[in-house]
Amino acid sequence: MAHLTVTVPENSQNILGTVTINAPLEKVFEAYTKEELFASWWCRGNSMKVYDFDCQDGGSWHIAEQSEDGNEYEFRGCFHEVAPHERIVQTFEFLGMPERGHVMLEKAEFVAIDEHTTEIRTHSTAMSQSDRDGMVASGMESGWRQSVEALGKLLEADD
Amino acid sequence: MAHLTVTVPENSQNILGTVTINAPLEKVFEAYTKEELFASWWCRGNSMKVYDFDCQDGGSWHIAEQSEDGNEYEFRGCFHEVAPHERIVQTFEFLGMPERGHVMLEKAEFVAIDEHTTEIRTHSTAMSQSDRDGMVASGMESGWRQSVEALGKLLEADD
Repeated sequence: MAHLTVTVPENSQNILGTVTINAPLEKVFEAYTKEELFASWWCRGNSMKVYDFDCQDGGSWHIAEQSEDGNEYEFRGCFHEVAPHERIVQTFEFLGMPERGHVMLEKAEFVAIDEHTTEIRTHSTAMSQSDRDGMVASGMESGWRQSVEALGKLLEADD
Repeated sequence: MAHLTVTVPENSQNILGTVTINAPLEKVFEAYTKEELFASWWCRGNSMKVYDFDCQDGGSWHIAEQSEDGNEYEFRGCFHEVAPHERIVQTFEFLGMPERGHVMLEKAEFVAIDEHTTEIRTHSTAMSQSDRDGMVASGMESGWRQSVEALGKLLEADD
């Protein structure tokens, strides 16, 4: 079953995560980089409106989560590096903040533990410790956990 | 004359800078966003090879500084947000490191102090304090100062 561990180091601007999935690395990487797959899990299983998803070096993305209560939550960012089957480095911003500029930098590294098991090691950095703490207080971890469960359902179903 | 102040806060992953230029905000913003102007000052006055410079929301950039000793220093990043006359948020990576992934997130805010004076307030964040300290130890500040002097020569000449 898909599993998420989150660490929030003291005196740091970072959030570290490890996602473990019972699926081969190539399939996991596809689920992060192919629009139709990405759209099916990233929003906690809610539907996603995709304005832009150009998942390559120097590309950008802009999506909205359509929640069950009828609200939309918009997010956008740019892809700094997309190294196939290895690493994605990108920016991330929730557009529902009172002002723009609270941006995070996120690195995800994809590691094959064995033929059927993949770890995604994530390292997210906020521009200040208070931005980082605000992100944690927003309920990020439980939302992330729902997304990881949706990713598990997508990939582990046909494993 | 163009002036740079750099602050490296303790127990933080950030580098803060203030650049003061005797030129109107519109001209300063142009010097950051128009390729031919940007190329003339950003590399400390050295010439720049531009592989890519798409300075808009979700665009990307990739350049090389051609130094006097014949070496090239490559840098690349993506533009998370380009808000005209206000703010640029982008990523930054020096490609001469032993491995990829040491990326920084940079925000520059443009503030008109008066009709002839502009401040650029920069906030750069590394993914770890050791990456930040490595950036400082690399001589970043003196290189940055040379670039600010080149920017001053470009903009203050015809002021």
